[in-house]
Amino acid sequence: MTDGSGSPAEVAREALDRLVVDVPDFPEPGVVFKDITPVLADHDGFTAVVAALAEHGRLDDGQVVDKVVGMEARGFILAAPVALALGAGFVPVRKAGKLPRETHAVSYSLEYGDATLELHRDAISPGDRVLLVDDVLATGGTARATRELVEACGGIVTGLAVLMELSFLPGRETVGDLPVSSLVTL
Amino acid sequence: MTDGSGSPAEVAREALDRLVVDVPDFPEPGVVFKDITPVLADHDGFTAVVAALAEHGRLDDGQVVDKVVGMEARGFILAAPVALALGAGFVPVRKAGKLPRETHAVSYSLEYGDATLELHRDAISPGDRVLLVDDVLATGGTARATRELVEACGGIVTGLAVLMELSFLPGRETVGDLPVSSLVTL
Repeated sequence: MTDGSGSPAEVAREALDRLVVDVPDFPEPGVVFKDITPVLADHDGFTAVVAALAEHGRLDDGQVVDKVVGMEARGFILAAPVALALGAGFVPVRKAGKLPRETHAVSYSLEYGDATLELHRDAISPGDRVLLVDDVLATGGTARATRELVEACGGIVTGLAVLMELSFLPGRETVGDLPVSSLVTL
Repeated sequence: MTDGSGSPAEVAREALDRLVVDVPDFPEPGVVFKDITPVLADHDGFTAVVAALAEHGRLDDGQVVDKVVGMEARGFILAAPVALALGAGFVPVRKAGKLPRETHAVSYSLEYGDATLELHRDAISPGDRVLLVDDVLATGGTARATRELVEACGGIVTGLAVLMELSFLPGRETVGDLPVSSLVTL
């Protein structure tokens, strides 16, 4: 419950505190998974987190970013509404083999094995200013690879906006000088 | 270009005609893939298709659906904004092993092999009215499985809204008496 008087970030934090469910031992023993699906199912909660993430697409010059990039798959759920809220275009970064036209591709290491992400070469124009949106910043590998893909197109990544940041993992180190905005730090 | 005077569906159809790219021989020889990513990257086009899909979440009794279900992964991009536009909750149907809590699961046949989809058991309440949203109705297997999942929770599927329907495939037969709304039939 909120009285509607908070900033978008305050309302969103309250929704995350109330609605995110901790799931122990998923996807493997010892890991506590942060399940955001109850936030998405709550219209007011979902609206609040989209508004709070969209704040980070407003630039110092009074303009908004040209594109919002979402990472497959949970990132799509947040990044698409953020793009619509800002008046920007939405661009998906996908796992290998899913995008049908010419792509840039970046491979990176996961805890178990490798992953490859792809971006259509014509999805970002040179000079486009781009906000990355995902649900969680954990190891930072996905964010770093996505930044490389956007930069390979000539785009300028202005920041990464996430709901939650896991401060016990090296996400901030991995993404280097990329500005990260997280609503909640765990 | 539009003069802004059309219905949401008319404006959306114009955007689809202008922006969807045909990609021959993807994902395999002989198939023409309909790439919707240029629609999503165009703010006006994406806004128009979301508005047109959302029309199908308005019910005859003047209410809107309680939940909008999107199927992984492209369905997420459309269903999440449709849920927000309607004032409904968003619920993801995911591939096997991705949802962390107790699920219902349905397996179905694809052209090559099988697929399993899952839905959190508590994501839909008994009596909830539910709109399914996806990008394309092709064979109908995903839509039929998703309907079964929602019904296993006690939900009532009011319809399936898609951007495009491939009329040379048996999608409508597969989904039976489920009302299907497609912006474009190919």
